[in-house]
Amino acid sequence: MPLADFRSPRLFVDAPLSAGAGVALERGPANYLGNVLRLGAGDAVLVFNGRDGEWRAVIAGGKRADRLDIVARTRPQDSLADLAYVFAPLKHARLDYMVQKAVEMGACALQPVLTQHTQASRVNLERMRANVIEAAEQCGILGIATVEQPLPLERYLAGRDGRRLLVFCDEAAEVASPVAALSARGRGGGIDVLIGPEGGFSEAERAALLKQPQVLRLSLGPRILRADTAAVAALALVQATLGDWITADQC
Amino acid sequence: MPLADFRSPRLFVDAPLSAGAGVALERGPANYLGNVLRLGAGDAVLVFNGRDGEWRAVIAGGKRADRLDIVARTRPQDSLADLAYVFAPLKHARLDYMVQKAVEMGACALQPVLTQHTQASRVNLERMRANVIEAAEQCGILGIATVEQPLPLERYLAGRDGRRLLVFCDEAAEVASPVAALSARGRGGGIDVLIGPEGGFSEAERAALLKQPQVLRLSLGPRILRADTAAVAALALVQATLGDWITADQC
Repeated sequence: MPLADFRSPRLFVDAPLSAGAGVALERGPANYLGNVLRLGAGDAVLVFNGRDGEWRAVIAGGKRADRLDIVARTRPQDSLADLAYVFAPLKHARLDYMVQKAVEMGACALQPVLTQHTQASRVNLERMRANVIEAAEQCGILGIATVEQPLPLERYLAGRDGRRLLVFCDEAAEVASPVAALSARGRGGGIDVLIGPEGGFSEAERAALLKQPQVLRLSLGPRILRADTAAVAALALVQATLGDWITADQC
Repeated sequence: MPLADFRSPRLFVDAPLSAGAGVALERGPANYLGNVLRLGAGDAVLVFNGRDGEWRAVIAGGKRADRLDIVARTRPQDSLADLAYVFAPLKHARLDYMVQKAVEMGACALQPVLTQHTQASRVNLERMRANVIEAAEQCGILGIATVEQPLPLERYLAGRDGRRLLVFCDEAAEVASPVAALSARGRGGGIDVLIGPEGGFSEAERAALLKQPQVLRLSLGPRILRADTAAVAALALVQATLGDWITADQC
């Protein structure tokens, strides 16, 4: 687990990347490089587009950076694990935070679901996408998690692939060993991790969740957790038992 | 894991609590109850002081709440597990957030340590205490984690109890199974969980850490994590293997 290191600025660009290519900088990234990071012509940055790996690039232009010259590939593209983070959206800054955390923890898809006690009824998908990109930039992640359209919980459940494991973090579950429960499932196959709203699931929702074919109802300890904390905790347990926090020979 | 539920306002008060007692409300809590929570005379809240358990209280006073009448105990005092969170402080809002998260995850003590790459050189301990209380209020935690004076890492290491397990989250550790490594340690005894600065530990610091008697160097996966994310992830793994996220009969 390398901790975030801000000494190597990393920038997402929505353009093909190859040695010798030039990428025009839009005003937003240009301002970020110049005014926030205080970089100028000749300085190096790392860039990625979610498809072509990570590349070293050099800032070009006059007083204002207006182009990146792509130099050499520093890392090949990798693929994100098939781990979706499904959640009742929170409001404002806490949603930003939760999205960033889910990306840091390795989620490949973010699926908002609207439940009976969901606090936020509208979700700003553009803002979610910007948070996905920011987290990927800061944490050296090369794939860009997808941001799905919000769905009512029952429509989400009706449409999901029942072969995927559904890890359903339930505030009403008895405290039991989450590690043992997760480890008992075999590795391999897609996983959906669901964190509900801070008001909890309704009884009808809980019953519908428990009818899903591959469902694992998980306890996250005896204390009340805020939803963004539960997100990181649940994803940590999943990654450390079924995901990429274990090396292959330790399966 | 009950998720946070804001329907039962909970207030920390620094006064003895017993049935029939009256607790004068200072301006801050009175404003919070009246202007934020929109509660007034006759409304019920839950109060705790870190020593006497949790009590139901009724707001008293005229137009402005100025007193709480303590009615009946709702929960006995419990004690926090002997789990210290030791960390290189971050700046501003991210430190607030990290402190709140460590409390939610059940830490009983917060120990800032200053390392070579620590970003923040000053730590506002009063602000940390306020964040401890806020998290305890919101998450139904009855004990108040202590906030320790910041120490340079080497002084902290020289003074700590070597019988305690030191879980040292190392960004340079090979990815291996954190759950297996933690589970191999027996339960019982105090635990210190150390998260370094986002610039990482220096080689000299790493060497000093590895000389500690009961040290466990932990990997938190292949991706870069921000320090506040690493905090929640590491505490989740510790609680789920050695802490109170497992019931006694599953030890």
